Amino acid sequence: MIKFGLFGKVIAHAGQRDALVKVLLEAATLMETVEGCELYIVNISDSEPEAVWVTEIWRDESDHKDSLMIEETKAIIQRGRPLIAGFGEQTKLCPVGGKGFFEG
Amino acid sequence: MIKFGLFGKVIAHAGQRDALVKVLLEAATLMETVEGCELYIVNISDSEPEAVWVTEIWRDESDHKDSLMIEETKAIIQRGRPLIAGFGEQTKLCPVGGKGFFEG
Repeated sequence: MIKFGLFGKVIAHAGQRDALVKVLLEAATLMETVEGCELYIVNISDSEPEAVWVTEIWRDESDHKDSLMIEETKAIIQRGRPLIAGFGEQTKLCPVGGKGFFEG
Repeated sequence: MIKFGLFGKVIAHAGQRDALVKVLLEAATLMETVEGCELYIVNISDSEPEAVWVTEIWRDESDHKDSLMIEETKAIIQRGRPLIAGFGEQTKLCPVGGKGFFEG
């Protein structure tokens, strides 16, 4: 299988960044039990106070696609949607190795 | 301590991407033993054949700074430099949680 990575930026409505972080951390908790999710980190930055970045690694791109079909994922997306003003750049990656990389 | 994250893009000279990946994976191997390095993933993408992205998480920004002072790090940077045509965007982040996040 070929690993699949995503680094994506989400912009919250003014004042809603922390609420969005909370929802994304709920997604991360769900990902603890989701097949093929190897990394799901939620990030913020002082320099862009409405932005949230998510760093993901999946065993395979199909695992990521499948995760979006799970009912709990859909429910979390529904909760997050009203908080989101828009999306920034999303980079699709092929992680090849390193510290914290799951072999196999 | 406040975690420190980096997501940075490096552009290799034409045909040198895989050589640059090799050097960055040597850096990742070094990072296995470096204090405070929690994640160091090397990524590529079919859509940008000369680019390499590195996803890093550090226990604290000072750990990252200290790592650049290590002799072995400097030697790896010296080996990588001739392969590098330039740098793309680098995003400095504050990772707040998620799957694969080290507490504490």
